[in-house]
Amino acid sequence: MSTAPEPVTVIGLGNLGRALAATFLRHGHPTTVWNRSAAKADALVAGGATAAATAGEAIGAGELVVIALLDAAAVREVLTDAVRGRTLVNLTSGGPQEARELADWADEHGARYLHGAVYAVPQTIGTAESSINYSGSEEVYRRWRAPLGLLGRGTFLGPDAGLASGYDVAILAGMYGMLGGFLHAAEMARAAGVRAAELTPMLKSWLADVFPVLSVFAAEIDSGDYGTEESGLAMNQAGLDTILRASRSLGVPTDTLTPLKELVDRQVAAGHGAVSLARAVESLRGAA
Amino acid sequence: MSTAPEPVTVIGLGNLGRALAATFLRHGHPTTVWNRSAAKADALVAGGATAAATAGEAIGAGELVVIALLDAAAVREVLTDAVRGRTLVNLTSGGPQEARELADWADEHGARYLHGAVYAVPQTIGTAESSINYSGSEEVYRRWRAPLGLLGRGTFLGPDAGLASGYDVAILAGMYGMLGGFLHAAEMARAAGVRAAELTPMLKSWLADVFPVLSVFAAEIDSGDYGTEESGLAMNQAGLDTILRASRSLGVPTDTLTPLKELVDRQVAAGHGAVSLARAVESLRGAA
Repeated sequence: MSTAPEPVTVIGLGNLGRALAATFLRHGHPTTVWNRSAAKADALVAGGATAAATAGEAIGAGELVVIALLDAAAVREVLTDAVRGRTLVNLTSGGPQEARELADWADEHGARYLHGAVYAVPQTIGTAESSINYSGSEEVYRRWRAPLGLLGRGTFLGPDAGLASGYDVAILAGMYGMLGGFLHAAEMARAAGVRAAELTPMLKSWLADVFPVLSVFAAEIDSGDYGTEESGLAMNQAGLDTILRASRSLGVPTDTLTPLKELVDRQVAAGHGAVSLARAVESLRGAA
Repeated sequence: MSTAPEPVTVIGLGNLGRALAATFLRHGHPTTVWNRSAAKADALVAGGATAAATAGEAIGAGELVVIALLDAAAVREVLTDAVRGRTLVNLTSGGPQEARELADWADEHGARYLHGAVYAVPQTIGTAESSINYSGSEEVYRRWRAPLGLLGRGTFLGPDAGLASGYDVAILAGMYGMLGGFLHAAEMARAAGVRAAELTPMLKSWLADVFPVLSVFAAEIDSGDYGTEESGLAMNQAGLDTILRASRSLGVPTDTLTPLKELVDRQVAAGHGAVSLARAVESLRGAA
């Protein structure tokens, strides 16, 4: 027995919002959309979507309201008392505290709240390459699993609405660290006479080799026990020195790596040279 | 037909040098060792190695001289006219220019020179987990392939002695970028109530998902054509803003990510907001 696709609303029609609405439409969901600049809705309307005149009208169109705006401030601007009885699934990027505040606001205004962090580029929304971490109302996650599942593989992390964002900003910080390292690596290679396309397969292979070390570091960070037989802070301090020196002699600015060196330096100066590099995380706590 | 293992010399008995010498010994090579602090040789001598009284004596003991010292300056200190007719395989870390200078020096002093960059921790030297990139004399690489192959999987990159080091410092810069990002991510997660051990599997999975993007970026960097349909600089600028803001609101210093943000900002300010994030590499060339 199959039931008719339920009505959904998408608020915010940037790259992400348009991809979400297009996915719902493709699967036969009656889809109401709203965007501050109405023209963004044109292609979707041509594809069968209904454009609401106001955010309130869009929120009133059906129970499930999916939000994909620029930031939490933009979300607060469009949410009104119209949310009473509605289910808000907010896929807007932001920090964990912002998500918790929105969840509290929704609760006070009689709406259910689920926050989601999307791992996809807009082009892969609605494909197997897209995944979404959710946190907040588990009831919402279960009730709306079918339409949400169209957008990407879902994982429910827990009832704290800030969890999905907490993971998200941390994962993106990790990603940008890798990307910054890649750009620095590519420029050092170029200065040394190596094309980025020659370097990159070797770099990727080495990064993948280092992945298991991240799990070791994670256990050390969680336990606060940084005893190590290898990869000590002093050894890494010397390694970073070699790279910074080589970078300078190749004429490549060291800005992206110097801050890590400083985190390491502080721990070595505090007498921790023999323990794991993972202890450099303590420099971020001002606890060196 | 098998031939008897040939004599080898190992100069420098830090963690790496001791692991190299132990591997040669394990495979029956008559092994002469030398280290400034002679005590480091004791365990190897007990295992069958011959300790030379001077570096010159060690260099004189056989044709193949493997060097694993602290840095290029330490290498220059131990090399004397005794190198004439010898084959130097230098596994000491450093920049490409240092390797090229040592290769020139060796050439002027009648020695053959091969430089190697080791991808292993000392514990994995001599196992399938170890790999070594070589550059410099291809003749040396071929002639000594058998004993060098005991140390780790070898790859010959080309006749420029600086190539192996050029790849090496770039790869390590990339690695430290990822490690710095990981530490920042772990601390943000902790501040958001997520253990590092919970975050890390998801982070690794996402980093692996981003790997193909590195190859796209590499092609863009090599060609100087940064046209893109996704992942534009302005979009990444907004993403970095979100993360830096979330990091600050979680009380985590943003030092390791701010420099990347500045590279991106410079390209966006120069009017390149719509092109690929890879163009941020141009900020490292002072060409923004």
